[in-house]
Amino acid sequence: MITTTNPATGVVADTSMAPTDPADVDAIARAAGDASLDLQARGREWRATLLDAMAAAAERHRAELVGTAAAETGLTEARLNGELSRSAFQFSLFAEAVREGSMFEAMIDHAADTPLGAAPDVRRLLVSVGAVAVFGSSNFPFAFSVLGGDVASAIAAGSAVVAKAHGSHPETSRLSFEVLREAAAEVGAPAATFGIVYGQAAGVTLVQHPSIAAVGFTGSLGAASALRAAIDTRPDPIPFYGELSSVNPLIVTPGAVAARSDEIAAGLFAAVTGSAGQLCTKPGIAFIPDGAEGQLLVDALARLTEQAEAQVLLNSRIRDSYHDITARLKDAGGDVLATGAPGGLGDAFDVSPTILSTLAAELTSELSEECFGPLVVLARYSDLDTVASAFLEVPRSLTATVHAEDDELAALAPLVELLQRNVGRVVFNGYPTGVRVSWAQQHGGPWPATNSLHTSVGVTAMRRFLRPIAWQNAPQSLLPAELRDGPLTVPTRVDGVLRLP
Amino acid sequence: MITTTNPATGVVADTSMAPTDPADVDAIARAAGDASLDLQARGREWRATLLDAMAAAAERHRAELVGTAAAETGLTEARLNGELSRSAFQFSLFAEAVREGSMFEAMIDHAADTPLGAAPDVRRLLVSVGAVAVFGSSNFPFAFSVLGGDVASAIAAGSAVVAKAHGSHPETSRLSFEVLREAAAEVGAPAATFGIVYGQAAGVTLVQHPSIAAVGFTGSLGAASALRAAIDTRPDPIPFYGELSSVNPLIVTPGAVAARSDEIAAGLFAAVTGSAGQLCTKPGIAFIPDGAEGQLLVDALARLTEQAEAQVLLNSRIRDSYHDITARLKDAGGDVLATGAPGGLGDAFDVSPTILSTLAAELTSELSEECFGPLVVLARYSDLDTVASAFLEVPRSLTATVHAEDDELAALAPLVELLQRNVGRVVFNGYPTGVRVSWAQQHGGPWPATNSLHTSVGVTAMRRFLRPIAWQNAPQSLLPAELRDGPLTVPTRVDGVLRLP
Repeated sequence: MITTTNPATGVVADTSMAPTDPADVDAIARAAGDASLDLQARGREWRATLLDAMAAAAERHRAELVGTAAAETGLTEARLNGELSRSAFQFSLFAEAVREGSMFEAMIDHAADTPLGAAPDVRRLLVSVGAVAVFGSSNFPFAFSVLGGDVASAIAAGSAVVAKAHGSHPETSRLSFEVLREAAAEVGAPAATFGIVYGQAAGVTLVQHPSIAAVGFTGSLGAASALRAAIDTRPDPIPFYGELSSVNPLIVTPGAVAARSDEIAAGLFAAVTGSAGQLCTKPGIAFIPDGAEGQLLVDALARLTEQAEAQVLLNSRIRDSYHDITARLKDAGGDVLATGAPGGLGDAFDVSPTILSTLAAELTSELSEECFGPLVVLARYSDLDTVASAFLEVPRSLTATVHAEDDELAALAPLVELLQRNVGRVVFNGYPTGVRVSWAQQHGGPWPATNSLHTSVGVTAMRRFLRPIAWQNAPQSLLPAELRDGPLTVPTRVDGVLRLP
Repeated sequence: MITTTNPATGVVADTSMAPTDPADVDAIARAAGDASLDLQARGREWRATLLDAMAAAAERHRAELVGTAAAETGLTEARLNGELSRSAFQFSLFAEAVREGSMFEAMIDHAADTPLGAAPDVRRLLVSVGAVAVFGSSNFPFAFSVLGGDVASAIAAGSAVVAKAHGSHPETSRLSFEVLREAAAEVGAPAATFGIVYGQAAGVTLVQHPSIAAVGFTGSLGAASALRAAIDTRPDPIPFYGELSSVNPLIVTPGAVAARSDEIAAGLFAAVTGSAGQLCTKPGIAFIPDGAEGQLLVDALARLTEQAEAQVLLNSRIRDSYHDITARLKDAGGDVLATGAPGGLGDAFDVSPTILSTLAAELTSELSEECFGPLVVLARYSDLDTVASAFLEVPRSLTATVHAEDDELAALAPLVELLQRNVGRVVFNGYPTGVRVSWAQQHGGPWPATNSLHTSVGVTAMRRFLRPIAWQNAPQSLLPAELRDGPLTVPTRVDGVLRLP
């Protein structure tokens, strides 16, 4: 039987769900493969309607979803309400994008005499890859789980989805799945548009199934590696999109610290401790100038930390890992600058917020290990060259952040170029947490941040689940609607020229 | 020492090139990594100039290139001249695309109050992944080799390229590399914009080098598998784009055979024997109706084949493989319907064009093995349901082709839908060979045709070597030119709306 644990009390309870057996996984995956063909065939407008229904269903079941997730994750209801809004918004945004249609990259090259001779009519559109398996993360029970962006982007692409329920929030996963099934029923989608499996073994069977055409994953490098090994046993390689690991270095310049050390201390503290520091975009290393003004920022951050409550982590594995990594960081030369209220006094999975300190000139890869939870390493530096050198010890990340004043920008250009090379998003005078869901967002980065050249947040996340097909000299009746002659229905490149409908 | 072989005479000669030793591979790869940063920094207009210079240099050295390739490949000068024109056209087309700029997917989401609260300014652009290693194919010494589409698309993306010289045309590879170096020098590009290595071991060292960020490959499943294994030893996964294998089923309907059997016989014969059948898009299986009208087509094809000369293959491995696979296809039930003049009488690597025949109802995966060279299996069928069933035995391919009459189209829709699911391009009343180089082209397909969701021909091949970066609240001076405020310079999505410059 699958169990569920309340991290705020440590109480373990049985659920009504059993690990999904291999025969059931097989049936679910097959049905998803068939449902994908159906979703593709029904076209864009219908899929947008389905996405809108998903958004509405999530909103309709808000109270139940938030209550269930709160009990399973220890996250606050305020945070979970915000996250559910974000989930619903994602479905709506993908509905808009599917209606607008750019993401399907319609192109028409009419037959022509070219420098290479007579050329046939060729028309191209992106279509669904087929059914997608989604493995959500522990830290976003909605926005990166069964009601999350991977699911929304896959449906937008025209793929049915089979989610693997997360072991840290199985009841939230089940309830989310039922909400999606309800949305599917409302618009007459095949029931198999959404499937769910429970248990690690079922997850492995799922990614090995011939009907699964791609995998979306958010989680640890270790879990990704195990899943990758399972996928590699397939005769056919399939894309595996993993959002994996990120240290998110943040740099405060001398000018910024002189201008607003208290403000940055407060912002950094919030970014490090929000959601108990369990965000893939949490700043894990902050480079702070070593002079007196830098010290003001450090002192302000220490004061905030010392006043902080212990924070409940999502599960015992993350709690244990927090202790283990904190110990390793100390061994590697991280001095304890401040801690909050001690955790671990009762049965809750709570820990103490912690600030470690080191010299940037002495930063090592050991001191740059990602620590999931409310911990940050401050690296004090004397000049920007030292930051640039130290930065090379930091694993490539989802984000890098710079706090700087306008008169410093010219001197910062080489450093910013270095950051760009090693991350997917560069943030100025803000914080990398609170990832905006929009067209231009990029939530991904060079390995080990992610393992692909794509984003898992924002509209372009759809691209992961789309593949191109070209039709050569095709009769009108056998072309997708978007490629037929007549008024354009989507932005289309016609004979090399991009045209709007 | 690297040797070169003339397949039309079997004569082996020394070249001036030695296998590249590991220290040299290291230096070449590092320099390519640095050159990529330079190419990125110089911007789009400059890269377009470089691509134009590449096109001009290829044209300027046409006679020398074609002569060298003819001696190394046994391909005719007419074919090689056409292929060189195609190579030059590709550089020019990518130059146009880089100037136009859509492929960089500029997006600007201004700061806004959103349903989820205040959102920061986020701007996104695709940039080069870094240096790219390219492994060309034996059968296109220009268009899929050192002067080929992988190189052109990587440069267009802003990546420096290190090519691995193909063992079947090392002199052509070396000469092509020198032509590219000349083009680079003309426009003041870093010398390391183009690099080349010789020998299998150097190729393995290359793909394992930390400065190599992606690999483009055209060749056999076996060679790809070996390279994949080498790539998998890296700590960081990098994209490996392989164009690998394709049987390219072709279906002739009863209506088409009734209307134009002689025309189709001639077209199919040309598609099967052009370039000695050594094209990844050669139709390997043709489904022909089993009645008297189908027989007319089969007889016409047999006559053409019986009159055909023996054809020179590219190297002894391909020649041996042609014999081995032909024998396997016969063992699997392929009856010999016709052969051309016998090959193998002298020292040339020549073979006899061959037509095998079977019943579609008895088609097996063994009879659907790809055979590189002038061979096609005819599968005679009684009805389209038999074709649909038999089609499932055929490996997924780059292309599928349908010859049909207008009044058959409605009945064909389910079969065409099945084809679309299993290939990257569907061709109507034509032949899959002669892949048009244009925006809308898709040269790729589900595994084992390729291992990615991308094309290796046409403008969108660039996408393989691009990754997104987002800038959040970035000062104007630190943004790429395309994302700054002011008049748009490239098609840009602004606050969700696609706008043209």
